Amino acid sequence: MARLTLAIDAMGGDFGPCVTVPAALQALASHSEIILLLVGDPDILTPLLAKADSSLLERLQVVPAESVIASDARPAQAIRNSRGSSMRVALELVKEGRAQACVSSGNTGALMGLATLLLKPLDGIKRPALMTVLPHQQKGKTVILDLGANVDSDSAMLVQFAVMGSVMAEEVLGIANPRVALLNIGHEEHKGLESIRDAALSLKALPQINYIGYLEGNDLLTGKTDVLVCDGFAGNITLKTMEGVVRMFLSLFKSSGEGEKRSWWLTLLGRWIKKRLARRFGHLNPDQYNGACLLGLRGTVIKSHGAANQHAFAVAINQAEQTVRRQVPERIAARLDAVLARSDKA
Amino acid sequence: MARLTLAIDAMGGDFGPCVTVPAALQALASHSEIILLLVGDPDILTPLLAKADSSLLERLQVVPAESVIASDARPAQAIRNSRGSSMRVALELVKEGRAQACVSSGNTGALMGLATLLLKPLDGIKRPALMTVLPHQQKGKTVILDLGANVDSDSAMLVQFAVMGSVMAEEVLGIANPRVALLNIGHEEHKGLESIRDAALSLKALPQINYIGYLEGNDLLTGKTDVLVCDGFAGNITLKTMEGVVRMFLSLFKSSGEGEKRSWWLTLLGRWIKKRLARRFGHLNPDQYNGACLLGLRGTVIKSHGAANQHAFAVAINQAEQTVRRQVPERIAARLDAVLARSDKA
Repeated sequence: MARLTLAIDAMGGDFGPCVTVPAALQALASHSEIILLLVGDPDILTPLLAKADSSLLERLQVVPAESVIASDARPAQAIRNSRGSSMRVALELVKEGRAQACVSSGNTGALMGLATLLLKPLDGIKRPALMTVLPHQQKGKTVILDLGANVDSDSAMLVQFAVMGSVMAEEVLGIANPRVALLNIGHEEHKGLESIRDAALSLKALPQINYIGYLEGNDLLTGKTDVLVCDGFAGNITLKTMEGVVRMFLSLFKSSGEGEKRSWWLTLLGRWIKKRLARRFGHLNPDQYNGACLLGLRGTVIKSHGAANQHAFAVAINQAEQTVRRQVPERIAARLDAVLARSDKA
Repeated sequence: MARLTLAIDAMGGDFGPCVTVPAALQALASHSEIILLLVGDPDILTPLLAKADSSLLERLQVVPAESVIASDARPAQAIRNSRGSSMRVALELVKEGRAQACVSSGNTGALMGLATLLLKPLDGIKRPALMTVLPHQQKGKTVILDLGANVDSDSAMLVQFAVMGSVMAEEVLGIANPRVALLNIGHEEHKGLESIRDAALSLKALPQINYIGYLEGNDLLTGKTDVLVCDGFAGNITLKTMEGVVRMFLSLFKSSGEGEKRSWWLTLLGRWIKKRLARRFGHLNPDQYNGACLLGLRGTVIKSHGAANQHAFAVAINQAEQTVRRQVPERIAARLDAVLARSDKA
């Protein structure tokens, strides 16, 4: 397999290099065919790398950046002052072709804005969207977008999200004629926001899209659709709600029954069964699918959770590698050309 | 305890009388101090009551209604044609003082519109909101509103929801100085929709409200706030997402491990432990807190899930009884007067 180079915004996220550096080393150890460019303050990064295995360090390079965009900065202002920041330098490495993808757990709005500015949207795309792939109850997967890149989405944007999601499901997940649904607060045609109702009308008229109607929040994990389209506000709320509930259940598995007195064999057996349950639900653990892909750009950008731990950030790096290998931006561009050209004629 | 009379829209919901009639009988059996007026088609309702215990039937009366509002009807049209419908007749019984509350699992939009039309909003309230009380991880409860009565909510409406939720938490849940948060997609002040940012500014300026800032979807069950305020679209999405995930977990408890061969004692013990886990999580079962209260009206209206089963609909009837006994509308009216008057001056 050809080697890939990925640029890592090592300073971003709630924990910065404390998470990104060990995660980068973990990713290097498990993927022998990747090279990582760690972008950030060398004075902070180098000491953290001191004890790393030299065989890993051969595939790692520190790229200096003098500043970091704060997680809570206003995106517009952050973008204006972004020159020399770890996020911007990482994106510039992709723009210049020195890296094939960028991974950041920094400020979402700034990442969205800078990525659009530097890497440019694909032809016909108004605004990129944050997309992730969720496991569902039927043992398949659902593509969901937008997850927060666009707080206000008009109907034209929702339609573009649907097209990108559909291409993603077909080309990357291998689902033929993927079902596409809009997230709404009811199944009836008159329900919900005007932008959603208008998008529904447009999607029905697009022969390239297998539009199946509205789905509600309780269907997020039921596998009734292959692609779930929503504006960034609703998408963010539904994904985070799901994550919160899943984390609560997983934490209860760990704590349940502790502090109670009971015989050792019952305790052991209880643990064993809880471990099995935890494994059964483990694929729903948000850490397992960390990393949302910014779809609709001429390059690959992966947004990790700001609060990602080492394992979760390593998963995001893995996502970047997979997205590049599967040529997601190129495939979306090719299919978009066809779909949007035909829909213009319709 | 004084007897209360509750009007039940017996024809509403996905399953109509097949659920509402047995649920009504269940509620009568467990609450000796309520009288139920079952509103609907006597030709359908009477046969379903044939085998009921005569002691229960003494506290039940069928009130005829000639039509039913379809769950998927457009609210505006449904309201225009609502005369004689089970939902409207049930609300009229409250308006006329023949019943103290109404319970319906019918069309949400129609219920919201008709209830506002017939029972009138409290002074100072622009639009009523659907509110429910969710159990959270810290063993307390969170008031959440709006859950879908208002798809588009401006900042003034969000502020009113905050006031109503705060009164509800203080007066009914007994929480002194309840914390109030707005549901948003980030903690930072600049995040989210304009209506939410404007509401945050107003809430900060209201000394009667203990406003603590934004919370995200993953904090729905963490108990970080006593009142969570959102527009009806986001509220509906977050609540339904939570319910979907909880139901999935609860269903997995039931099915987990079935079909596998193992010794009988391991199977039994496994079941026992799973049962304990299910009990531990059972309070999160959406059926346990079915019934959202339409806050901001001069009367009590409880909206049950359209898909509620017998047990869940009985819980909604119980909610109606509790809401009347605790004088929720009266308490909200009294406190609203004070808060709104003071905030007008501010």
